Amino acid sequence: MAIICWQTGLTDNQEAKKSLGHVTVVVVGGTGDLARKYLWQGFFQLYADQVGKGHTFSFYGGGLSPTDKGTPVLFGILKELACPLELTAERCALVKDQFLHLSKYLQLKTTEDYEKLNQEIKQQLEKEGMVEAGRLFYLSVPAFAYADIAEKVNNTCRPPSEAWLRVVLEKPFGHNLYSAQALDEKLSGQLKEEEMYRIDHYLGKQVVSKILPFRKENKKLLDPIWNKHHIERIEIVLKETLDAKGRIQFYDQYGVIRDVIQNHLTEVMTLMLMNLPANLSNSKEILQNKLNFLASLQYVDNINAVVGQYQAYNGEVQEELNKTKDYFSMTPTFAGVVIHVDNAQYEGIPIFMTSGKALDERVSYARVLFKSDIFCVQDPNDVKCKSKQIVFYLGHGNLQYPAILVSKNLFKPELVNSGDWKEVTEHKDVNVLGLPLSDYYIQSPVTPREAYCELISHIFFGRKDSFISAEGLLASWAFWTPLLEGLSRVFPRVYPGGTANGNLLNFQLRGNEVTFSHEAVVNVINPGAEDNFQVMQGKYRSSEMVSAWAQELVERLASDLLLAAEEAIREEGQFHLALSGGSSPVALLRALAINLYTFPWRSTHIWQVDERCVPHTESGSNFRSIHDLLLQHIRIPYFNIHPMPVHLTQRLCVEEDGGPTLYEKEIKKHINGSSFHYVLLGVGQDGHTASLFQDTKLENDKERLVILTESPIKPHQRMSLTFTAINKARRVGVLIMGKSKHELVSQLSRIKGESSKYPITKVQPKSGTLIWYIDYDALLG
Amino acid sequence: MAIICWQTGLTDNQEAKKSLGHVTVVVVGGTGDLARKYLWQGFFQLYADQVGKGHTFSFYGGGLSPTDKGTPVLFGILKELACPLELTAERCALVKDQFLHLSKYLQLKTTEDYEKLNQEIKQQLEKEGMVEAGRLFYLSVPAFAYADIAEKVNNTCRPPSEAWLRVVLEKPFGHNLYSAQALDEKLSGQLKEEEMYRIDHYLGKQVVSKILPFRKENKKLLDPIWNKHHIERIEIVLKETLDAKGRIQFYDQYGVIRDVIQNHLTEVMTLMLMNLPANLSNSKEILQNKLNFLASLQYVDNINAVVGQYQAYNGEVQEELNKTKDYFSMTPTFAGVVIHVDNAQYEGIPIFMTSGKALDERVSYARVLFKSDIFCVQDPNDVKCKSKQIVFYLGHGNLQYPAILVSKNLFKPELVNSGDWKEVTEHKDVNVLGLPLSDYYIQSPVTPREAYCELISHIFFGRKDSFISAEGLLASWAFWTPLLEGLSRVFPRVYPGGTANGNLLNFQLRGNEVTFSHEAVVNVINPGAEDNFQVMQGKYRSSEMVSAWAQELVERLASDLLLAAEEAIREEGQFHLALSGGSSPVALLRALAINLYTFPWRSTHIWQVDERCVPHTESGSNFRSIHDLLLQHIRIPYFNIHPMPVHLTQRLCVEEDGGPTLYEKEIKKHINGSSFHYVLLGVGQDGHTASLFQDTKLENDKERLVILTESPIKPHQRMSLTFTAINKARRVGVLIMGKSKHELVSQLSRIKGESSKYPITKVQPKSGTLIWYIDYDALLG
Repeated sequence: MAIICWQTGLTDNQEAKKSLGHVTVVVVGGTGDLARKYLWQGFFQLYADQVGKGHTFSFYGGGLSPTDKGTPVLFGILKELACPLELTAERCALVKDQFLHLSKYLQLKTTEDYEKLNQEIKQQLEKEGMVEAGRLFYLSVPAFAYADIAEKVNNTCRPPSEAWLRVVLEKPFGHNLYSAQALDEKLSGQLKEEEMYRIDHYLGKQVVSKILPFRKENKKLLDPIWNKHHIERIEIVLKETLDAKGRIQFYDQYGVIRDVIQNHLTEVMTLMLMNLPANLSNSKEILQNKLNFLASLQYVDNINAVVGQYQAYNGEVQEELNKTKDYFSMTPTFAGVVIHVDNAQYEGIPIFMTSGKALDERVSYARVLFKSDIFCVQDPNDVKCKSKQIVFYLGHGNLQYPAILVSKNLFKPELVNSGDWKEVTEHKDVNVLGLPLSDYYIQSPVTPREAYCELISHIFFGRKDSFISAEGLLASWAFWTPLLEGLSRVFPRVYPGGTANGNLLNFQLRGNEVTFSHEAVVNVINPGAEDNFQVMQGKYRSSEMVSAWAQELVERLASDLLLAAEEAIREEGQFHLALSGGSSPVALLRALAINLYTFPWRSTHIWQVDERCVPHTESGSNFRSIHDLLLQHIRIPYFNIHPMPVHLTQRLCVEEDGGPTLYEKEIKKHINGSSFHYVLLGVGQDGHTASLFQDTKLENDKERLVILTESPIKPHQRMSLTFTAINKARRVGVLIMGKSKHELVSQLSRIKGESSKYPITKVQPKSGTLIWYIDYDALLG
Repeated sequence: MAIICWQTGLTDNQEAKKSLGHVTVVVVGGTGDLARKYLWQGFFQLYADQVGKGHTFSFYGGGLSPTDKGTPVLFGILKELACPLELTAERCALVKDQFLHLSKYLQLKTTEDYEKLNQEIKQQLEKEGMVEAGRLFYLSVPAFAYADIAEKVNNTCRPPSEAWLRVVLEKPFGHNLYSAQALDEKLSGQLKEEEMYRIDHYLGKQVVSKILPFRKENKKLLDPIWNKHHIERIEIVLKETLDAKGRIQFYDQYGVIRDVIQNHLTEVMTLMLMNLPANLSNSKEILQNKLNFLASLQYVDNINAVVGQYQAYNGEVQEELNKTKDYFSMTPTFAGVVIHVDNAQYEGIPIFMTSGKALDERVSYARVLFKSDIFCVQDPNDVKCKSKQIVFYLGHGNLQYPAILVSKNLFKPELVNSGDWKEVTEHKDVNVLGLPLSDYYIQSPVTPREAYCELISHIFFGRKDSFISAEGLLASWAFWTPLLEGLSRVFPRVYPGGTANGNLLNFQLRGNEVTFSHEAVVNVINPGAEDNFQVMQGKYRSSEMVSAWAQELVERLASDLLLAAEEAIREEGQFHLALSGGSSPVALLRALAINLYTFPWRSTHIWQVDERCVPHTESGSNFRSIHDLLLQHIRIPYFNIHPMPVHLTQRLCVEEDGGPTLYEKEIKKHINGSSFHYVLLGVGQDGHTASLFQDTKLENDKERLVILTESPIKPHQRMSLTFTAINKARRVGVLIMGKSKHELVSQLSRIKGESSKYPITKVQPKSGTLIWYIDYDALLG
């Protein structure tokens, strides 16, 4: 019985029996650090479990050193291997002897070396008349060597088609989306996806691999509370006391986000929040759900994160990388990020993800804190008045052992597979995350197991869901890359290290933004000057103009819209707003959707200024973008939404379908005197506005409010409000943003009155007001 | 200077000057308890302030006793009046002497008495050659006497039209919506709304009347956080240590909700959460915003509340009401309610409202607790890691004085009108709601003032926004009445009183439901048997049937729909659901909207089974009810909503507009083989389903999916899916609820196969499944 290593793999034993035969294990980098610390122990455990069960084995440690140098190193490692707990000393000695006998050091450097290896495997199989079950290559080497080794394996060491090939890779898998894609392309030219086992050793941690089963076992109790209505916040934390000294060569290229957040902590978050698969052993379903979850994350960039660097780090960099004394590394050794999920189940829940080196404590956990739903009229010491939480405790800290903790005021968790997990009922007198241990139900593994030991058994049993898929890897990189790029220009806050950090690294969410909670006391690098730009008001083309940097400008426009809406609703009970397509309104729509909770949407009607003649569901449709950016996020009555009818009777903008007339009728029916309360316009670089272009023939009938027009650029057919309709409006706002509009803004300022070359100049509200919103980029170039 | 009483009224002084003249004050019930304790002090203060400013006064204390008995009682009260703080003893003696001189006791019982009063006023005015400014009747009498007195005042005591009449009323204003309406009708037959001043003395409390100004002064700081994204919970609390002994005659008819929650606590909540009026002195705008807020509250009934009764209460009832020893009063002396606001700004924030007698502590406050938005990496004692809250502290408790507290980690509040409010910077060493006092910014009134004193000055100045309007009163009753009715059948939990209550009254939100957090230890009345009904499965008309009590049935159907949706989306990426109109689906739609957070709406398409030929915006429209109950609450793409086109080209169901054909086309375009994944049907008492009636002529063309039909009841014209469309569906659910359907359910069970009399019998999915959902009322009668 070898429970320590693959208790969870037992159900797969049948498969293992089917493919009985010889297994060759090759640890490339077999005398390196990782191999010495974890890998050989795992393979020894695998052997100890499998010996006598039908499989035969041989183990190769490969390295760059010649055989005479490498062999004693390898055997030095192997001789030191610890005995599995379940074996008697006598039995262990025997098994270990066999294991050493089956092991061999090989130089693995050139293609010829790999060919030799292949020959050796074949000859041995022939000699002993064995069938081949599979070959396992564990690449415990720097990532830059992966592609080369994969190519050699593919070209020289493939087993016959009946046997499997499994190549195990360790992070880092690239350092951003593009390099990960490039690596993936290289590798996938040599190996099939099912042949690659990308290790994230967190997936081998007992508590991490228990997250999905725990959620499944407690589905009935969790379902009602596992959502935005009950979860207050989530914290995913890996705090280290160690620093990066001695590892700078590696670390300085990566930093804390690439080192542990993009992979380990992201995996933990995913397992906690992905849709629970119907079948926990269906790797495909798990993968799909993981991908869906990652796709639902809100975009994160450097306004959503803070970074720090421990004070001694830079000196270590100068020393280990041979840099001069004026060299500054911007690599963060601490990061705090707040993530949001953009789906109905979790939206609004802040996920605080953080990790750092040289902190006050070594601890790793993921905590789900629930909203308090109790009102304690009296007796506030009542256990039910305390905080309600579930903690996936990965280790260290006050508790010191891995466990799943459920606060007693929440529920008593099920313990279904009670073979390898137990309930802990003896409580050390410690506090864990705000509660004394006695306030928790505690589940813990019966025997603590090493992650690598666990994962090696999963490789052997082909359990792909314990590994990172190519798609999952790229999805995670796609999520983290914009932040990493943004941070490459941010100076990390310098912190002294250890308890001396005090509150210097505490961080908080302000609106959408993540900031340190306290001003920096020690901050040798960051000049810390805050940008505090003012909004400027003036005149442009004899009308009012508001100008500011993009963000402030959009906020100002949004708040002006709110004022206009409130006024209209006070006076008429309704607010009629016509929105343009194009790129300028994007930021505005986002601001309206997210920031203005008090916007009176229930009494607001949304109209379109113009539309392209494409179905509303297509991505080119203006309505589609208004929908996705705004309508999808607010609570507005269905009846208040007025898309332009460009797609009647399944046809696009056909004259005889009378779309413009229909829209006119709708406008007249709802709006007093057909005067919109607010028309929001953009301007094209060519001076067009709405879908009214230089060549647009204006109808003879000056009363028309809506017409079909032709755009010089695709899609050509458009529907648009006319100048008649626009100039009837009570307020017209023209939003112009970006350097590409600077030229136009300058030209327009020189033209008095109308110019047929620039349709925008025909916007002259009869009795309403016109305001220009021009950002500094467009105004100042 | 009489700051104590009407600092806030100073701006109205001009108006006061305009109407200079004689003011007659009549306190009906002028020798009663309230008058003795508060009212005369308030009128004395009013006089002391106004004397010499142009108005003249006379004061009448009216009562049922004859003059010779009443006069000494009244003067006994008046002689004991305290001197206003700002007057010297000498000046006070002088003013008091004048005040006594102007005061008089009158018997006010019969119409003649009132006529006499009127004569006396007139004669005095004539005699002294004075112009009349107005008459103030303060009705300090039991509510049952209001109508009668109002009639007498109206008939006999109206001043000439240039002068004002103000009649002041005290709660209770009815004991539910209907009695309040009846009282209002009676009173409004005699008095105009602007003549009535309904007092809620909480509106005279300094902190309560500061809520709106505080929100306005700190608007910039509050706007970003005064919403569901930042507020975690709100608590509105009035705890008393006193019991009801000696007041049972009154109290037992009302109970805690009518006594303090429907009025005081509801007013506080309204001021905290209503939209901030643009102009704080615009009573009309304030009233409108209050009404809008009350209208946005989610319906509350007895699943949203818990009630208790202190143990000694029932004995007191038996004694004071002369009841026998087996009499049990069900009047609650404690209540905990959780309220939700159904608007985008506050939705999801639980408002814990609670009050009780015989509790451990006397305290009253309203607290806004904000979500923690900080992650404390280290140093958890950092003040920024503590809870963030704003407390409107009305008095008593640890603090002992009224104040507005803002935790220092939130912001430093503005103090704009610094005349009557001050910042407190000396801190007693006490904890208030979880934080030491030194962690708060504290604002407090410069001089503590009595609420009545304040309100009497507001009456004099005609500041109607400090009083309850008829509309506001009825809106509040409309909100509380369903709960009061529901609770009339609920046994209150008995609690011992004082600290002995322990955790017995702590209550919590479980899903939608409010329950006590702990099992009752002392519970002499409530048998406490929990209703635990099972869902039953069986056969009905040879198809599967699920039956349960209504609530469970609906939950089961909702969860079956979720399963069907998940399956469809797994297989086809979309779920097509057709919903019926009528009353049965209401509870289901509500359940779908509120409880199923994980429902995959983004991939769900909503279709209609049938529709009435009315515009979609009208309340009779099926689409309108689907919209209001469901669509408004979920995040579903606009494009996935498919209302039946009953209103094409502004006409209702005109044959040549081809609505049915259009809908057929849409169905065919989106749905594989036109087979809905789920069609949800109801059944009318006459056996019709969808809008397919006994007399509906089915088209010859069996391929038609949508037709126009005629209903025997209005509105006659309908659009409906055909049996062809329904029977193509992969799943059909028929939901039947309520006793009124029992007869039909019995009849249908006896019919085999189709019957032309009962259209529902033609629902026979070809290859799909049919499930009947029938509640116990419909099944068992």
